[in-house]
Amino acid sequence: VTRSERATARIAVDLLGGDFAPDVVVDGALRAIGADPDLHLHLVGPRRAADGVLAALPAGDRDRVSVTLALGAAGMADGAVRAVRPDTTVRTAISAVACGRADGVVSAGSSAGVVTAAVVLLGRAHGQRKPALAVDLPGRDRPVMLLDVGACVDGGSALLVSHALLGARYARANRVAEPRVGLLSIGTERGKGDRLRRVTDTALRSTRWPVGTRYVGLVEPGDVALGGPADVVATDGFTGNILLKGIEGAYALAGRRPRDAAPPAALLLGVGGTVVVCHGAADAEDLAAGIALAARTHRMAVVARLDAGPTDVEDPE
Amino acid sequence: VTRSERATARIAVDLLGGDFAPDVVVDGALRAIGADPDLHLHLVGPRRAADGVLAALPAGDRDRVSVTLALGAAGMADGAVRAVRPDTTVRTAISAVACGRADGVVSAGSSAGVVTAAVVLLGRAHGQRKPALAVDLPGRDRPVMLLDVGACVDGGSALLVSHALLGARYARANRVAEPRVGLLSIGTERGKGDRLRRVTDTALRSTRWPVGTRYVGLVEPGDVALGGPADVVATDGFTGNILLKGIEGAYALAGRRPRDAAPPAALLLGVGGTVVVCHGAADAEDLAAGIALAARTHRMAVVARLDAGPTDVEDPE
Repeated sequence: VTRSERATARIAVDLLGGDFAPDVVVDGALRAIGADPDLHLHLVGPRRAADGVLAALPAGDRDRVSVTLALGAAGMADGAVRAVRPDTTVRTAISAVACGRADGVVSAGSSAGVVTAAVVLLGRAHGQRKPALAVDLPGRDRPVMLLDVGACVDGGSALLVSHALLGARYARANRVAEPRVGLLSIGTERGKGDRLRRVTDTALRSTRWPVGTRYVGLVEPGDVALGGPADVVATDGFTGNILLKGIEGAYALAGRRPRDAAPPAALLLGVGGTVVVCHGAADAEDLAAGIALAARTHRMAVVARLDAGPTDVEDPE
Repeated sequence: VTRSERATARIAVDLLGGDFAPDVVVDGALRAIGADPDLHLHLVGPRRAADGVLAALPAGDRDRVSVTLALGAAGMADGAVRAVRPDTTVRTAISAVACGRADGVVSAGSSAGVVTAAVVLLGRAHGQRKPALAVDLPGRDRPVMLLDVGACVDGGSALLVSHALLGARYARANRVAEPRVGLLSIGTERGKGDRLRRVTDTALRSTRWPVGTRYVGLVEPGDVALGGPADVVATDGFTGNILLKGIEGAYALAGRRPRDAAPPAALLLGVGGTVVVCHGAADAEDLAAGIALAARTHRMAVVARLDAGPTDVEDPE
């Protein structure tokens, strides 16, 4: 653990995001503070929930928590527009990042709402027209990053290519020295998949990749669940969300999560700040893991390093 | 168990289909014969593999096996056209159904090849323009049928609607008295999902459903893995295949399949005969389960009863 990895991280937390807010968020915030002595939290929500966190903390830890009151919840059925209204917790929490009061933000609210508010308040970054939600899934040997898992559901081939490049750069910023990038499809032979996959596979074969990065072609869902041929797997937000939720459902039915399974917290790539989205049904442990992910991402300066970006590219094969 | 469920079933088996053919197919055929005294197998493949089955059987069971020699394998990378050449095992096996020598057929070959050969040789049926591959997945309380899991990867909204209707009729023919039909998406609220889902959801709401059948709206992948709101879940073949393989991969990583997990054998609906497709990596147990599924489907006259079809429809709500 290097010095920078222990640096203070100030993470804004949306107390009203998710199906079981604010209770599980309060509990998750407490767990996160307990686990990381250099973590500061900026709680955004109603007074009572914020007081719930403060009251449960030892007196010496209370100065690690600041509070901004906000009362508007943006529910799953509200649509993305609701999230950007001035009074919502999600907007207020993301604003804390935009104005430099926080280093990152975590919400278990509607991902459409978080994505929209993040784009509006933090702006697009890293040359991305549209952001992508990325998750690290456990594999047998090493994790696999899957993106997009739901930020953009109606993208075409150009968006998939830009997300694949974003994923590759993220993987490098996140210490994968030579990321292997794959495209999710239903078979590994060329030509397998629907029209979008066939067009995108061809485009990715002629893409100029950053030095050290390699496109390995089509990969199957089992290669995402188990790991193997690729470190980064790109797909459209609809398919990625389907796959992610299917894997989660299977673990639930099997009654067993694999060892070290990363909880379902997603990092929003392509916006000008560190934004973590937990899923709506997240429990306290998931929230704490989401806060830890935001802190780690800030400490590794991942978002800033994404922009070190694509000057060093290799010619396609 | 009624009399008809014990009736003889004559199932053609493609000895050269799948990654581990013919060995696992030979083993699977032996298991199937051992488990079902009223099963007859029509083996299609090279002499040596067929002899492997015959040699391992007790003398008294050998008259339950017939053989047609064929030597052409249609591999995963060969494309669908290869499968319909006259010398392939998959074509020869499906032909046995077409000419009445067999009551159903099982192949672990390329599903694109099996689907193409089945459409060519058995014809379209049940008013379907394009067939669908359907799997029964285990749920917490009762199984969930997911279709299409890979027969048609580039369909639009009209195809999804016709597949949803086909699934509903299949469920009724398969003893679900009042099937609840859902559309796979990434959220359950109206409007969730990509463009294809939004258009199809609207179309399904104004569809005339068979009596007793009900459209329950959008369902999520967890509802497929765990079961719950729907007995039949419709999706496009690309997404369905992704979800199916993701769930399988998750079970593999978790090191545990749920109790009674149906092995991954899919029934091809919408063609004029009983066709079961096992996945390419199927083992002997999977093949035996596929053969049992074909026999059960024949005995329940599911394919014939699908045509009892859609005269009895209800008005949409």
